[in-house]
Amino acid sequence: MSVLTTEPDAVPGGEEPPDTGERHRLTAVTGLAALSLDAMASVAYGPEAIVLVLAGAGARGLGFTLPVTLAIAALLAVLVASYRQVIAAFPDGGGAYAVARAHPGARTGLVAAASLVLDYVLNNVAVAVTAGVAALTSAFPGLYGDRLWLCLAVLALITGVNLRGIVESARAFIVPTAVFVGAIFVLIAVGLFRDHPVSTASAAGHASVVADNATTVGTLLLLKAFASGCAALTGVEAIANAVPSFRVPRTRRAQRAEIALGAVLGLMLIGLSVLIGRFHLQPVAGVTVLAQLADAALGHNAAFYVIQFATMILLALSANTSFGGLPVLLKLLARDDHAPHVFALKADRQVHRHGVLALAVVSAALLVFSGGDTNTLVPMFAIGVFVGFTIAQIGMVRHWRAERGRGWRGKALLNGGGALLTGVAAVVVTASKFTEGAWLIVLALPALVAAFEAVRRAYGRIDERLGLGLLPRAPHRERSLVIVPVSALSRLTSEALSAAASLGDEVRAVSVCAPDPEDRVRARAFARSWRDWDPGVELVRLTPERHGLGRPIAAYVRTVAAAEPGTRVTVLIPEAEPERLWQRLLQNQRGAIVAHAVRRETDAVICRLRLRL
Amino acid sequence: MSVLTTEPDAVPGGEEPPDTGERHRLTAVTGLAALSLDAMASVAYGPEAIVLVLAGAGARGLGFTLPVTLAIAALLAVLVASYRQVIAAFPDGGGAYAVARAHPGARTGLVAAASLVLDYVLNNVAVAVTAGVAALTSAFPGLYGDRLWLCLAVLALITGVNLRGIVESARAFIVPTAVFVGAIFVLIAVGLFRDHPVSTASAAGHASVVADNATTVGTLLLLKAFASGCAALTGVEAIANAVPSFRVPRTRRAQRAEIALGAVLGLMLIGLSVLIGRFHLQPVAGVTVLAQLADAALGHNAAFYVIQFATMILLALSANTSFGGLPVLLKLLARDDHAPHVFALKADRQVHRHGVLALAVVSAALLVFSGGDTNTLVPMFAIGVFVGFTIAQIGMVRHWRAERGRGWRGKALLNGGGALLTGVAAVVVTASKFTEGAWLIVLALPALVAAFEAVRRAYGRIDERLGLGLLPRAPHRERSLVIVPVSALSRLTSEALSAAASLGDEVRAVSVCAPDPEDRVRARAFARSWRDWDPGVELVRLTPERHGLGRPIAAYVRTVAAAEPGTRVTVLIPEAEPERLWQRLLQNQRGAIVAHAVRRETDAVICRLRLRL
Repeated sequence: MSVLTTEPDAVPGGEEPPDTGERHRLTAVTGLAALSLDAMASVAYGPEAIVLVLAGAGARGLGFTLPVTLAIAALLAVLVASYRQVIAAFPDGGGAYAVARAHPGARTGLVAAASLVLDYVLNNVAVAVTAGVAALTSAFPGLYGDRLWLCLAVLALITGVNLRGIVESARAFIVPTAVFVGAIFVLIAVGLFRDHPVSTASAAGHASVVADNATTVGTLLLLKAFASGCAALTGVEAIANAVPSFRVPRTRRAQRAEIALGAVLGLMLIGLSVLIGRFHLQPVAGVTVLAQLADAALGHNAAFYVIQFATMILLALSANTSFGGLPVLLKLLARDDHAPHVFALKADRQVHRHGVLALAVVSAALLVFSGGDTNTLVPMFAIGVFVGFTIAQIGMVRHWRAERGRGWRGKALLNGGGALLTGVAAVVVTASKFTEGAWLIVLALPALVAAFEAVRRAYGRIDERLGLGLLPRAPHRERSLVIVPVSALSRLTSEALSAAASLGDEVRAVSVCAPDPEDRVRARAFARSWRDWDPGVELVRLTPERHGLGRPIAAYVRTVAAAEPGTRVTVLIPEAEPERLWQRLLQNQRGAIVAHAVRRETDAVICRLRLRL
Repeated sequence: MSVLTTEPDAVPGGEEPPDTGERHRLTAVTGLAALSLDAMASVAYGPEAIVLVLAGAGARGLGFTLPVTLAIAALLAVLVASYRQVIAAFPDGGGAYAVARAHPGARTGLVAAASLVLDYVLNNVAVAVTAGVAALTSAFPGLYGDRLWLCLAVLALITGVNLRGIVESARAFIVPTAVFVGAIFVLIAVGLFRDHPVSTASAAGHASVVADNATTVGTLLLLKAFASGCAALTGVEAIANAVPSFRVPRTRRAQRAEIALGAVLGLMLIGLSVLIGRFHLQPVAGVTVLAQLADAALGHNAAFYVIQFATMILLALSANTSFGGLPVLLKLLARDDHAPHVFALKADRQVHRHGVLALAVVSAALLVFSGGDTNTLVPMFAIGVFVGFTIAQIGMVRHWRAERGRGWRGKALLNGGGALLTGVAAVVVTASKFTEGAWLIVLALPALVAAFEAVRRAYGRIDERLGLGLLPRAPHRERSLVIVPVSALSRLTSEALSAAASLGDEVRAVSVCAPDPEDRVRARAFARSWRDWDPGVELVRLTPERHGLGRPIAAYVRTVAAAEPGTRVTVLIPEAEPERLWQRLLQNQRGAIVAHAVRRETDAVICRLRLRL
């Protein structure tokens, strides 16, 4: 799921200048390889999702694997045709959010955005990581018991790489995607020449999850299998988002890549489901369907391990794309005032880090919630995907109706049919999985939309109060009084008074004396040494009744500001900054305490002077 | 363990004025009740620690419970006599740290302080919480499986109470301590009239931990039992720390309370161990020895539950004292430059909170490490207690030798004997439990001492560089240039320029234009509106080659400062502050980013102006 993920050569935080030359852009073939990562990777869990639902109706149910897969392939064809039209209509990219914003309107755009955020945040990372680890534990069953820890370790690795701030380029995905797709096609081709499985080594000794008493295969079961299997369609929209990254003629090349993507993905899905039927594959706990197919077609040898590793690496990379994609989506939302503006700031590594960490924490929670099991997460994942698809297609129908170009009815019909199919799938998967986690999505989606709208309203009010868009009144000079909290004579005090003298028309030093005899002695000695030093600055001694540093100073500032209207009061806080980082722990935080109190209780400007030691 | 804990009427952060009247001070009786909390509470786990070691040698081993307890009671007598002398010699209180600082010298004082910190941080909270929960699960065996969660819940409760900042007074401890001690004496008295246990209901169905094959009872086993049981002696030093809290004649009253403490504690320990022998008590997993004794003496009725609840509450209060004690110790260390000065700041709730949270986190880690089991923690706990006792007594020996008053040899002999006994106990418990957690203490103790010394050295260097103690040079006025980062016209911009005009001889506004076409358009429009507004301030446009806000401004500040020596450069950062807290999340953090960069890369003074909306 990566509607906004794989803009090629996009960098987290966008540090790259945008004027990259044409020759760095993508052709249809490199574009396909670079942008199809998510779609191809979903082959690892899509067929499995179908088989697991059908297994609920025993061996007879499993017989419906191929028909269900053909239905999904048909939907894939509709989606590809539909996104071919999206590419033509929105050559600037932008995906479901852009389409929905342009046509059904702002709120629908927000629903699309919310479904995307949920997919990034809730599921994309978690699904890809669990599926990747499932590929690994299928090869090494001894690790199955530790799969949750493995998932968390993979997540930690991806998070670490993203915190370092990699220069992420879609080009880096070309080789692993090609290796994986090549391996799957070899698997299918060789498998079609076999009449019986070469090996069932990996499934041996695992408990079958096929129901014993073959019940009748009802429509609802088939719909559920269809809806679950549609998880394999994620990533179909990636090319449509990244049209600007293609070489001219961009639209043509992107459309060709999109069709190729559909063809390759469809062939893989159909091929795998033919093999599932031919080998009478029985899903078992702990070994993926893809691993069993690799066994059956190629034997339990080096080829089997190559496929498991390729799958794992591709899925890990697919998880990684979320870390790139979410910031891009949040940036778009922030520009429209729907998300905190901080997400629209470019090149601030700190901000990017917050996003990465937040995504990692939520993903880790989901991993723990699911116990590291892909099939718990796939239905939740699918809901968001379908909502996005449906909205994009409805948007396209409106688009054609508004344009009324040549043959618009046919195009609108195509998109409308797609919307209907994906909409039905969304409803089916939500209803059938409601108690198993789908309720979370049903609650979170409207909550997110409401939050986006509340943020927008809040920005409106803030802009109004700031008088944004109007010419503000001219600045004017006032008398300046600088207050400097002091507690000892040192180079720092001298430096602070010099700065204060430069900034203010009048300077006052204040010192706080705590209400205990010990501190009164100290304060008297300090006042004496102040007189000896004689810096030409008045020392105000505050003697509050209770212990505390920040409040007495803030109260003094308030009093002074009230007594002298027309005077701008500034508090200058001197702080020594030791050389080494650990020594900064030794600082007494007086500065921070005073700054906090003054900030909270007064309107004074706060200056902080740091003296490097 | 609370060498510095229970200063009566001490308040976390010390907000109480120190001149409390004499009538609020403690008599011998109220002082005993108020200050003996920790010592009395240790009865709940001390005898158990003995019995568990002896059970390793079967029923024959358990026969040595009374002799071992008598040896501990003898040590208690020595300690009480010794602390009676400490009270006389150090009437200002202060405990092991004060004694050791005065006599063996600074480093030994630090060892004493480190052992105290370890006891507070590592063990006091964890031991008390686990023992309290053990009292509860003995009454309600169904909760035994969840004891770790119960421990964490109790810890969370205590932490919460301390975060709120309770006014902690030793007087609050009088009632629960009296109830607990009264209940134990009733238990002992009634038990002495019984020949057989009234009930063994609580132990029924629990696995006995007594070894089957009775081995010979060796010296090492007895030493281990002695060392483990000495955990019951914690808290003996509390009265000696709090002498200033007694009514005049302070020394006399404190000494009487100390002797009463020793007598009560000794009687309880001996009484309980007599009952253990009389009832042929067998330790079992999951029910405390004290609970079994209550059963045996009073029957499995309301009295049994009263004792369990009283024990639990007393232990929870005892855990609470660490939260009061650690800050007091850290304050003393900070005053001697051995800990960050932030710990010596009075009445800063924030600082207090950091300490409470840190203590809670470390205690939670220990609870998880021990799985909520007291007996895993007691040996680690005992080491620190003994190190403290030993150091205090060696200090007293030196004290007497230095004073050479009347009968000093006798007094020195008493303290010397006490030091030898507790020193041996420290070595025995460390050696016998080395692999079970004692290694942690053996590593942490010198590491803490080294840290205290490193902190002191660092402060020395910092003071030297600050020129502390010398008269600094006189402050001087310089030309002031104020730089204001701006990005839009608003009330905030106008306010910021007014403030800058008041503070500076010259004001310059800077705006950063990101290297992309979109932002260049925005920047040009901004420059136009600036000309229209015409605030009389030059607008400097920075056009860096890479994205980013902080670095270009910091680079500009550096350039200006280098070009105009003798000018004091100030960066004034305007920020809007929305009314509601959640709306502050919407702020774009530009201010923080610029402040961070300018602070890191330049020496400029940073001013922040916050405009409330």
